Amino acid sequence: MAMINENYIKLPGSYLFSEIAKRVDAYKAENPDAAIIKLGIGDVTRPLPPAVISSMHKAVDEMADEKTFRGYGPEQGYNFLIEKIIEFDYAPRGISLNIDEVFVSDGSKSDTANFQEIFGLENKIAVTDPVYPVYVDSNVMAGRSGSLGADGKWTDLTYMPCTAENAFIPQLPNEKVDLIYLCFPNNPTGTTISKTELKKWVDYAKDNKSIILYDAAYEAYIQEDDVPHSIYEIEGAKEVAVEFRSFSKNAGFTGTRCSYTVVPKEVLGYTASGEAIELNKLWNRRQTTKFNGVPYIIQKGAEAVYTLEGQQQIKSLVDYYMTNAKIIREGIQSTGIEVFGGVNAPYIWLKTPTGQDSWSFFDKLLHDVNIVGTPGAGFGPSGEGYFRLTAFASKKSTEEAIDRIKTRLKL
Amino acid sequence: MAMINENYIKLPGSYLFSEIAKRVDAYKAENPDAAIIKLGIGDVTRPLPPAVISSMHKAVDEMADEKTFRGYGPEQGYNFLIEKIIEFDYAPRGISLNIDEVFVSDGSKSDTANFQEIFGLENKIAVTDPVYPVYVDSNVMAGRSGSLGADGKWTDLTYMPCTAENAFIPQLPNEKVDLIYLCFPNNPTGTTISKTELKKWVDYAKDNKSIILYDAAYEAYIQEDDVPHSIYEIEGAKEVAVEFRSFSKNAGFTGTRCSYTVVPKEVLGYTASGEAIELNKLWNRRQTTKFNGVPYIIQKGAEAVYTLEGQQQIKSLVDYYMTNAKIIREGIQSTGIEVFGGVNAPYIWLKTPTGQDSWSFFDKLLHDVNIVGTPGAGFGPSGEGYFRLTAFASKKSTEEAIDRIKTRLKL
Repeated sequence: MAMINENYIKLPGSYLFSEIAKRVDAYKAENPDAAIIKLGIGDVTRPLPPAVISSMHKAVDEMADEKTFRGYGPEQGYNFLIEKIIEFDYAPRGISLNIDEVFVSDGSKSDTANFQEIFGLENKIAVTDPVYPVYVDSNVMAGRSGSLGADGKWTDLTYMPCTAENAFIPQLPNEKVDLIYLCFPNNPTGTTISKTELKKWVDYAKDNKSIILYDAAYEAYIQEDDVPHSIYEIEGAKEVAVEFRSFSKNAGFTGTRCSYTVVPKEVLGYTASGEAIELNKLWNRRQTTKFNGVPYIIQKGAEAVYTLEGQQQIKSLVDYYMTNAKIIREGIQSTGIEVFGGVNAPYIWLKTPTGQDSWSFFDKLLHDVNIVGTPGAGFGPSGEGYFRLTAFASKKSTEEAIDRIKTRLKL
Repeated sequence: MAMINENYIKLPGSYLFSEIAKRVDAYKAENPDAAIIKLGIGDVTRPLPPAVISSMHKAVDEMADEKTFRGYGPEQGYNFLIEKIIEFDYAPRGISLNIDEVFVSDGSKSDTANFQEIFGLENKIAVTDPVYPVYVDSNVMAGRSGSLGADGKWTDLTYMPCTAENAFIPQLPNEKVDLIYLCFPNNPTGTTISKTELKKWVDYAKDNKSIILYDAAYEAYIQEDDVPHSIYEIEGAKEVAVEFRSFSKNAGFTGTRCSYTVVPKEVLGYTASGEAIELNKLWNRRQTTKFNGVPYIIQKGAEAVYTLEGQQQIKSLVDYYMTNAKIIREGIQSTGIEVFGGVNAPYIWLKTPTGQDSWSFFDKLLHDVNIVGTPGAGFGPSGEGYFRLTAFASKKSTEEAIDRIKTRLKL
């Protein structure tokens, strides 16, 4: 008899975005003429950069000719792309990486979800709260979570609250933890971590032989100086950290699918008998067995991000969204609502006014001014009392949304 | 302290293709002028069909325009592709499927490797021998294999030998098994299973509440009438079988990456307390949590396979390779070597002559006639004494290879 993985049964439904869709649909049904503006989902809207388009057309043509056709590529990605990643994203920051320390993949979602597979089930997992749900759910599926408590927390996970009270900086946990998920610039709060604070985590990981799983998918949005773009800017991080990067948010690849994960050879995990094992070898084995590489055409598109034009074009994309972020941040601030994030990230995290819970504020925003955002409670218990707006709509919609909030929202 | 998944340590290195590469390189170093022909790897060589190329160019252009740009798509794939899959690949065979029973993904390798995640670790796994190594390795990584014996078999897996003695048809196992991996047309043997034989497996699965994981990646190569294209042609299979299909081998997508997996809602797994759970729901949860969909551009390319031109073009591709298969099969047969497969599959499985082991025959073929194939032992213990040749080279190379074997190979 085929027995299922019962960890799946523990997972509640993907409540957040389906509940949002349900409430929006219900409102629309009653108000068919409402001009709803969506500032809820973390998905880009601008077209792909022209350099990427041009490179993909060329790659498509290569696939049409037997002399340049490509069959199976390396599961780890083509060297032409990995070399550019190292040259543009790491070397200028004084970080040296080898070709076989970078793994190209189809998305940071896949990689942050899959990476836990190379670890034992006995590891203690630490996540920030609020958090990107994939880190939690993938560990629930694997069997590391315990059960879900009435407080919305899994009994075996360690939660590190990130709220206004601690300036959204996770504090070192009291109990020992083995695998630590950090995401900066943060989704959903849009806040960042300084090098000094991040150094505390690297030191903790070194002291405890822990691993930091560092999600830097929003790195391109960093505008300020002291904010680390890569965890490897921190001394010692190459011994304890894996870094996830993506083309989704800098180059608009959410529907095009390309990302990469850096696994330095110095990063070690341990067997029960105390033997140290390179995570790089384990991840390589995972990827070569359970993945077959990113399409050649897509990798050629990603490569074009690293041309002179490509670099200028992705800067324009980021600037476009960051202008929206500024419009949202300053507009909301002017209403007296407390605002966080939006300076080095496309996410604005606001404190719901007058002590409303985040779903009530969702309803109010939808009903009063026809704007859809995301209730903070959807990202974890410490997200209650907060609300996320995203900078990914068009500038016109963003301006209109903020104008409505400033002029028509009754706080 | 971060503990690794020690199941990974059990895995031997990816010996097969690296050992082949090593021996070929060593030979080349000593014989730099040798014109080596590779009939070893299961990778296509013909360019993508013109209909696919044209559709991908259009899709790339859509991504360049904000009005037609696509961000995140459904993790399960776009309906435009799923509808065509059902209409062309299933409806004509009398198989009705719903949209949400088909999951588009980036490859049958990923899906056949990942699908075991939704099952408990206590399930007993059955594989044919020889076998596509991914089925075995993914279960080793998950912890279902036991240890690797000196006979090349994992202690906790059930092996079903497929050799000339049983006409390469796996026999129902004596012990009860829960998850059964079947691949027809088979890689590596190139042989098929009749509807009558496949019905025995469906009946076994129904009787034992087992699940059949049916890999039909080579379905397009079927030429004969009684060979099932889909396991759902067998009565009752929709209650017990999941089917994997790919665009890799019919449309040349090995480097373009698109496939799909069918999970009918009738297929059930069980909890320890005996509750029946739809695998469709579990797989949907797995894919929405750990995967983010296939690139829009690639799905548009796959959609074009289902146009009138696309269907003609993939038929030409298959015909091209099957002409090669015929050349190989008949050519090898004429030398007196016993040959299997190659009639409904791009793989030719031959019995190594004069009782040679499969690596000795590999060396002989490389040294005497400069042809690279794949030793059967690389696919499992029962592959010893066999050897795989593939039909994916150019017709010219294939003819030249067979001419060399006929005229210069000393048996």
